[in-house]
Amino acid sequence: MNRFKELAYEANLDLVRNNLVLFTWGNVSAIDRERGWIAIKPSGVSYNEMTAEHIVIVDLDGKMVDGKYKPSSDTATHLVLYRHFPEIGGVVHTHSTFAASWAQAQRGIPNVGTTHADYFSQEIPCTRPMTEKEIRGDYETETGNVIAECFRERKINPVHVPGVLVSNHGPFTWGKDAADAVHNAVVLEEVAKMAFLTHSLNPQLPMTPALIEKHFSRKHGPNAYYGQ
Amino acid sequence: MNRFKELAYEANLDLVRNNLVLFTWGNVSAIDRERGWIAIKPSGVSYNEMTAEHIVIVDLDGKMVDGKYKPSSDTATHLVLYRHFPEIGGVVHTHSTFAASWAQAQRGIPNVGTTHADYFSQEIPCTRPMTEKEIRGDYETETGNVIAECFRERKINPVHVPGVLVSNHGPFTWGKDAADAVHNAVVLEEVAKMAFLTHSLNPQLPMTPALIEKHFSRKHGPNAYYGQ
Amino acid sequence: MNRFKELAYEANLDLVRNNLVLFTWGNVSAIDRERGWIAIKPSGVSYNEMTAEHIVIVDLDGKMVDGKYKPSSDTATHLVLYRHFPEIGGVVHTHSTFAASWAQAQRGIPNVGTTHADYFSQEIPCTRPMTEKEIRGDYETETGNVIAECFRERKINPVHVPGVLVSNHGPFTWGKDAADAVHNAVVLEEVAKMAFLTHSLNPQLPMTPALIEKHFSRKHGPNAYYGQ
Amino acid sequence: MNRFKELAYEANLDLVRNNLVLFTWGNVSAIDRERGWIAIKPSGVSYNEMTAEHIVIVDLDGKMVDGKYKPSSDTATHLVLYRHFPEIGGVVHTHSTFAASWAQAQRGIPNVGTTHADYFSQEIPCTRPMTEKEIRGDYETETGNVIAECFRERKINPVHVPGVLVSNHGPFTWGKDAADAVHNAVVLEEVAKMAFLTHSLNPQLPMTPALIEKHFSRKHGPNAYYGQ
Repeated sequence: MNRFKELAYEANLDLVRNNLVLFTWGNVSAIDRERGWIAIKPSGVSYNEMTAEHIVIVDLDGKMVDGKYKPSSDTATHLVLYRHFPEIGGVVHTHSTFAASWAQAQRGIPNVGTTHADYFSQEIPCTRPMTEKEIRGDYETETGNVIAECFRERKINPVHVPGVLVSNHGPFTWGKDAADAVHNAVVLEEVAKMAFLTHSLNPQLPMTPALIEKHFSRKHGPNAYYGQ
Repeated sequence: MNRFKELAYEANLDLVRNNLVLFTWGNVSAIDRERGWIAIKPSGVSYNEMTAEHIVIVDLDGKMVDGKYKPSSDTATHLVLYRHFPEIGGVVHTHSTFAASWAQAQRGIPNVGTTHADYFSQEIPCTRPMTEKEIRGDYETETGNVIAECFRERKINPVHVPGVLVSNHGPFTWGKDAADAVHNAVVLEEVAKMAFLTHSLNPQLPMTPALIEKHFSRKHGPNAYYGQ
Repeated sequence: MNRFKELAYEANLDLVRNNLVLFTWGNVSAIDRERGWIAIKPSGVSYNEMTAEHIVIVDLDGKMVDGKYKPSSDTATHLVLYRHFPEIGGVVHTHSTFAASWAQAQRGIPNVGTTHADYFSQEIPCTRPMTEKEIRGDYETETGNVIAECFRERKINPVHVPGVLVSNHGPFTWGKDAADAVHNAVVLEEVAKMAFLTHSLNPQLPMTPALIEKHFSRKHGPNAYYGQ
Repeated sequence: MNRFKELAYEANLDLVRNNLVLFTWGNVSAIDRERGWIAIKPSGVSYNEMTAEHIVIVDLDGKMVDGKYKPSSDTATHLVLYRHFPEIGGVVHTHSTFAASWAQAQRGIPNVGTTHADYFSQEIPCTRPMTEKEIRGDYETETGNVIAECFRERKINPVHVPGVLVSNHGPFTWGKDAADAVHNAVVLEEVAKMAFLTHSLNPQLPMTPALIEKHFSRKHGPNAYYGQ
């Protein structure tokens, strides 16, 4: 259990090292699918003071397994994602600047270049605005539900598009483990910045489907040939 | 008194650590409500050379209580804020880039996302331009007066909106103490940047009132559940 | 051979030192024209872990000469450039933010100032979008081919314009050696940023041909008088 | 003479410390009015390798007084400024990003806020484009001449507006000494950035003349009360 906490702890610190968070505005969780444990950042604890022992462990229903602190207030959203997307091993939430700005504009991040296509096989979607009922209800669970609905209704494969913008809020990303989810959070912020600049230069945002497919399959799937 | 100076000194240095100031373009003050003392940065002293002993202490009428230096030229503005907003314990003024740019555009920072709503319950207002008479009169006091007028006339609670943009000038923020006021200055600059980017992507800037209320009350008030 | 690898290694690290790459998103190669050797970064190896021994050496046909790793997936593009541009000694590919954004917008970087004209005698061109056949074919070789076609058809001298944007992808630069190619990659990113800002302020982008010629010839050619 | 060189050397390094230069794209000079000596950066020498001994000393006609290196290729422009503006003691030239972008757009930096008005009493002007004859003639001297013409024809006091944009090129600033000229170069870049952002939010750029006058006179002239 200590190694599991350590892993979640390091992934949380990687958010800071990659300049994705201000203060406590972000959190990473990891899941141990065999045991059904989720390790997540405690709520409102500053990154400077946090140690691996602060990491909280809950089960898939949010019940406390281990830890002295309250888990992140966004825990319920993480749990929904783990339940709906069985392939994923880690989840990240940040308010990174450019990604949050697209979310605030209620627009998905268009796929306009190979940097994007290397990691995301299509647009990174923005969820529909939540209803007043969802907001006043079990808000964090409903946040997860609108993400799951977005992927289900638009028939998006969460392994091919490992991230989403929650309308007026910010990005969630995921990956095969917590480190991979953080990696995708860094990429999402960078492609959000590039798409912002591209949009200013040319709102048409032209991109060939064949080029998207080529770059995505160069790094992913059976014919990948990038890396060692 | 030394501990009080130390506190104001550290809060001033935090402005530098958070990249909110160039040269001497910023100042923080703290108030001791019992004694009626205000500790504030000396005018035009560089942050590199400043020590806790440089901090100046004045009373609520601006009369010198302790210190060898002239207090910040913006002291009179701080005093007006302490007199009108009895709940606050610290005040910050900066020329941070994005916040100052909204001020120069004479526009408040619209509340278009949960990052903003976590700290400010509505738009961060921009004061009306000052009249020629106010500018040529007791300028720094009048600067405080237009801030107070702005909150009074628009019926804004300064505890729920702990910051303002002074038209063509820059931001003032406040908080329960000096450190909290600096924290709010960092947040204000970040939400100013996000709102700038959002505005470029979608000038409509859509946001549900229910979502604003939800995020603000998650962190503030009787039903807050963020943090330990 | 070790010194040759060392040179390519250092040039690759310079990409990181100049903030041009995230993760493994970039590569530098050097050519030894006498021996016909190209030294290039291995594919997908992180810059933190890479040593000079990781550098791969191939010949102009891409055949392995030395090294234990797969060469960069972009190697074929580098080879085309070395074959078509016999004056060049180093090639760089990055996804640097502003340059990639112009590429994504399918627009060349206009020559609107002396900073640009000091290094590039005219617009930095953007290649035409690749055809579906090219993309599905020998993609990296075809990427080199569209660059060569762009310079041939527009009659651009690759020594006077040591860089290009590949449509929807990002920049390639070159130079008399690998270090010079990296230098040009840094310049290209900076002029891409300046041109972006200039374009926002004044889409007319006015610039006198005489001024372009003056600045380019101040640093290059028989009458250069910049430097020692 | 060594102390004079040291002073110019330190001011040149301050450009780097303030992130105003890439590679060798900038230079600072200082003048000793009594002796008629100008100390200036050598041409094309990298800031990493430069020592105080590299500094070159010339007279007001550009004749070498001391030094083993060629002076900056922009020396002639500095000399014109020293001859036309007798109050100044130091000159800076950079290609800082936002200032150069306004120059490339052939637009002066409008005075839209108190940050600007604290240092510059009005718009920072942009010179007219140079004629082909001026460019092909004694180019660097003519660059100084168009600056002098700009201030003379628009009746601008160079002490109240210690900087200018050279059309399609970049900023020159000056001050009472070299350190002050560098300080003004930092300010000019920051107000160029703020004005860029303000312009994006509100192209009207409103600002009261009374507020400009107030802020400028708070820091400058007989009634200044900022600082100790």
